[in-house]
Amino acid sequence: MDVFFLTVGAAMVLAMHAGFAFLEVGTVRKKNQVNALVRVITDFGFSTISYLFIGFYVAYGITFYAPVGDLEVMEGGTNGYKMVHFFFLLTFAAAIPAIISGGITERVRFWPNALATVLLVGLIYPFYEGMIWNGNYGFQDWLEASFGAPFHDFAGSVVVHAMGGFLALGAVITLGARLGRYTEDGRVNAILPSNIPFLALGSWVLCVGWFGFNVMSAGTADGASGLVAMNSLLAMVGGLLAALVVGENDPGFVHNGALAGLVAVCAGSDIMHPMGSLFVGVVAGALFVYGFELLQNKLKIDDVLGVIPLHGVCGAWGGVAAGIFGSTDLGGAGGVTFMAQLVGTLTGLTIAIAGGFLVYSIIKATLGIRLSEEDEHMGADLAVHQISANPEEDMSH
Amino acid sequence: MDVFFLTVGAAMVLAMHAGFAFLEVGTVRKKNQVNALVRVITDFGFSTISYLFIGFYVAYGITFYAPVGDLEVMEGGTNGYKMVHFFFLLTFAAAIPAIISGGITERVRFWPNALATVLLVGLIYPFYEGMIWNGNYGFQDWLEASFGAPFHDFAGSVVVHAMGGFLALGAVITLGARLGRYTEDGRVNAILPSNIPFLALGSWVLCVGWFGFNVMSAGTADGASGLVAMNSLLAMVGGLLAALVVGENDPGFVHNGALAGLVAVCAGSDIMHPMGSLFVGVVAGALFVYGFELLQNKLKIDDVLGVIPLHGVCGAWGGVAAGIFGSTDLGGAGGVTFMAQLVGTLTGLTIAIAGGFLVYSIIKATLGIRLSEEDEHMGADLAVHQISANPEEDMSH
Amino acid sequence: MDVFFLTVGAAMVLAMHAGFAFLEVGTVRKKNQVNALVRVITDFGFSTISYLFIGFYVAYGITFYAPVGDLEVMEGGTNGYKMVHFFFLLTFAAAIPAIISGGITERVRFWPNALATVLLVGLIYPFYEGMIWNGNYGFQDWLEASFGAPFHDFAGSVVVHAMGGFLALGAVITLGARLGRYTEDGRVNAILPSNIPFLALGSWVLCVGWFGFNVMSAGTADGASGLVAMNSLLAMVGGLLAALVVGENDPGFVHNGALAGLVAVCAGSDIMHPMGSLFVGVVAGALFVYGFELLQNKLKIDDVLGVIPLHGVCGAWGGVAAGIFGSTDLGGAGGVTFMAQLVGTLTGLTIAIAGGFLVYSIIKATLGIRLSEEDEHMGADLAVHQISANPEEDMSH
Repeated sequence: MDVFFLTVGAAMVLAMHAGFAFLEVGTVRKKNQVNALVRVITDFGFSTISYLFIGFYVAYGITFYAPVGDLEVMEGGTNGYKMVHFFFLLTFAAAIPAIISGGITERVRFWPNALATVLLVGLIYPFYEGMIWNGNYGFQDWLEASFGAPFHDFAGSVVVHAMGGFLALGAVITLGARLGRYTEDGRVNAILPSNIPFLALGSWVLCVGWFGFNVMSAGTADGASGLVAMNSLLAMVGGLLAALVVGENDPGFVHNGALAGLVAVCAGSDIMHPMGSLFVGVVAGALFVYGFELLQNKLKIDDVLGVIPLHGVCGAWGGVAAGIFGSTDLGGAGGVTFMAQLVGTLTGLTIAIAGGFLVYSIIKATLGIRLSEEDEHMGADLAVHQISANPEEDMSH
Repeated sequence: MDVFFLTVGAAMVLAMHAGFAFLEVGTVRKKNQVNALVRVITDFGFSTISYLFIGFYVAYGITFYAPVGDLEVMEGGTNGYKMVHFFFLLTFAAAIPAIISGGITERVRFWPNALATVLLVGLIYPFYEGMIWNGNYGFQDWLEASFGAPFHDFAGSVVVHAMGGFLALGAVITLGARLGRYTEDGRVNAILPSNIPFLALGSWVLCVGWFGFNVMSAGTADGASGLVAMNSLLAMVGGLLAALVVGENDPGFVHNGALAGLVAVCAGSDIMHPMGSLFVGVVAGALFVYGFELLQNKLKIDDVLGVIPLHGVCGAWGGVAAGIFGSTDLGGAGGVTFMAQLVGTLTGLTIAIAGGFLVYSIIKATLGIRLSEEDEHMGADLAVHQISANPEEDMSH
Repeated sequence: MDVFFLTVGAAMVLAMHAGFAFLEVGTVRKKNQVNALVRVITDFGFSTISYLFIGFYVAYGITFYAPVGDLEVMEGGTNGYKMVHFFFLLTFAAAIPAIISGGITERVRFWPNALATVLLVGLIYPFYEGMIWNGNYGFQDWLEASFGAPFHDFAGSVVVHAMGGFLALGAVITLGARLGRYTEDGRVNAILPSNIPFLALGSWVLCVGWFGFNVMSAGTADGASGLVAMNSLLAMVGGLLAALVVGENDPGFVHNGALAGLVAVCAGSDIMHPMGSLFVGVVAGALFVYGFELLQNKLKIDDVLGVIPLHGVCGAWGGVAAGIFGSTDLGGAGGVTFMAQLVGTLTGLTIAIAGGFLVYSIIKATLGIRLSEEDEHMGADLAVHQISANPEEDMSH
């Protein structure tokens, strides 16, 4: 039964990776669509290998080398629950490169990016994941002793999203902006997205899959909670409506605003009150729009899809918000403290920012991380894959 | 367990909204694709707010203001079943504006449409929904006393689809046809769809999600029925094959024909015989094609996607058909009478037609409901959202 | 409970048909996109009718003509488990024409193809299906007596995929290559795909749906197994990464490589060790790339999507591999023998190859199977459906 439960959840989160792919395909220029598709699916492949052989052991100390008979005995006749749990947690881990991908797209080299995926999913992500979700290194005990509660991150606002978003900070800055994005005399050139329907398709797939991400984070069918489902729904709606208003009816903001609300509600979706979740979503939707414009136009950080505001900032907001709206004073279920949430979140951010700069700087210094100018001009599709998105139309002359 | 069951159902019906979006994107002209996407997702947002604060109370008398602890106590330790039930029923309620959207697209103003969504989902839909599914106002008791059975509408052929389709009648007539669709000298100008693959994608997503809509309408995992699944399948197939033949291999008819069968089977999918369901689907597929051509070409009602024949006519057919093919004489499970089904259906149609004209006429008279001629010519994408569907290609010159 | 389980599985495999449709839409030329969409959805319709009235009886001896009350009594109060089981198995049966469709696309006539679908799904597929999955004709008993074990094909590497892929061999050869594909002086002309994002969308939908195909093949919720989920995941990843390397970063190879791994793992996903499954997937990904190039460029068999290497060759490999990696010597769960797997697989291949040539040759000789040269030049969209994929853009001049 629980195996069925988690399998449905894992399939839904696997579908989210298709959502990441199409959100990126729609937002990049046409000459980089194929590359976006191939990077997202192969990043999923590299993530699986890295998490199977390294990351899952780093976080949970579990391996899968024993014969099938022993693997099942090890679990005491639970139909391989640990194996489907691996699958479910892998789909979370693999979200890390999928998030970063949207920031570094249109100019990153293929194989150096694959190496970064292996390092992040094998080492940095599971280091923090194990700290929070498996009690490694005594961090949760220390938080509880110091601040009255462990860090509560039910479905990964910080463990997954803020981690991915702030890892992308180092990646995007190390990589530098796309050619022509910012001129030397200080102008900001808009680079227009190629395909709004694909962007919207990606967002819809992510939204639907997210209910697997959040609800099935309970881990067992008995733990499935209507509160989690309702809170996810209301945060999603709060995010999209806030982005509609603040973002002045822009389709990119609206469709990403729904995701902003979902990012922020992950941490506290099992303890916040529905009205609190709606508010958390509204704030996230607005944060995304303002954060996007601040980064792109003021700070001149060329985060193409806005993954730093979307996953980073809204994820951090979600971690902290769980400490506010999860309290019984605001109608929540309690069991959290503001300080534990704050410290847990800041710890995640620190690891993400340091880890991102570290990994991408090393790769830049050794292998090189960026396409040549010529390749970037031509587009990654022809440069890396020798084919364009619409080959019959583009290449048959 | 039941929470898991309904969560899967709700996620599948949520996905149907992506299906509504792409069915519309593919059918409208390219200059209105972005607007279709944004209206469908934001209508979902406005529906959620309206149903949460007004509609769900109107239909079921339930609110969600108590603290989380009390919300769960209120349900007696059912893991928040009422909350996920709200989510599930909301995805039905939000289908109302999604259905209407396909009729009024390419010329409706954004914010007046949002207001209509709030009124329909908050008041008119839950008024009838509560009458049928919650026994409000003694309507079902009266039907049972008068005609031997209450009105049986298992998954909403009438409550959702005929309601949405006939609300659209008032909306479409109040709004008027698209510019140039019908000339003063009586000619009918075809306005060609932009993108058949997107139309087909929308139809597929709706078809798959529909199994959540129908099967999970049982409400609990124990109630899930293979009969419902099989009947839904056979009606879908009957609809698509009938539309293939009657519609002379037109891709729009085929892909909408599958939906016509599914609309019609909702009401009686738990009581009709599989062979009855196949027949109901065949009739629905043919009804859609004939109805579409009658409305568009003879009656000159510019219902862009054909939502009046699809959801309205086929939904009404489904309500009545449950009274025919649900009877034990035709191999069904019984418990229905033809007259109760007829009266229940006609009552729904009356409320829908009156409600649609009322709401859209008031909005037209006060705020205005239609884009300016200039904006309609330019397209809603640029007029309302300042961006087109393929910005890089369309706008970079 | 089991009804819910299988319903989710059936919905996921139904979604796979949308995946087949978009994989084909993206790979064919633009003038054949509509035809691909319509053939896939109507093939599903014809398959349903044929399997309902003929095929399911051929394989399992079950019909659904009794009144609803008796249908449920027949099952002993199992909520119509047999009906949802029919639905689930139908989605497998309907994969047969969906697989073949990718091989014969761009030149096959519509109604003769529909007739082939009816014959294959009603007679040939269920003949072998019943032999393997229902113990018909004593074939499994004979294998067990002769080779120590029955033929083990958990989720249809051979029953579904090799069957479909090798039926396509007869179909593709009988039909002949597309006009201009191979010249008389021996040159091979590349025909470029129309749309890589649609191809990738199709692949993603297939990948996600596959977890319904594999995991829900257990048939009951209690039988759901984490081992199946993990093995499917690892074979998928093995396939896509091998195709990435061997296929030199080509997006078509990468996205089909994931499917190659999934095809191969179906047979033994419940008994192979995870490391064995990873290896099986790697081999399948490489087999697909090499097989594709061999068929298309050396043997000059114009199998447009490469369904013979993908489903045929990788399916056969999966049938045999279950006999290798399922053994306890290689960490598997045992209960299989290499010879039983080999003989079972070869029997399936023989039936498929003979059946394919038989059915398509008869249709060719009687009705004709191929579009006229003129229609093929014009494209099947305009020739068969009187509409193109982007009518507003293509047809409004």
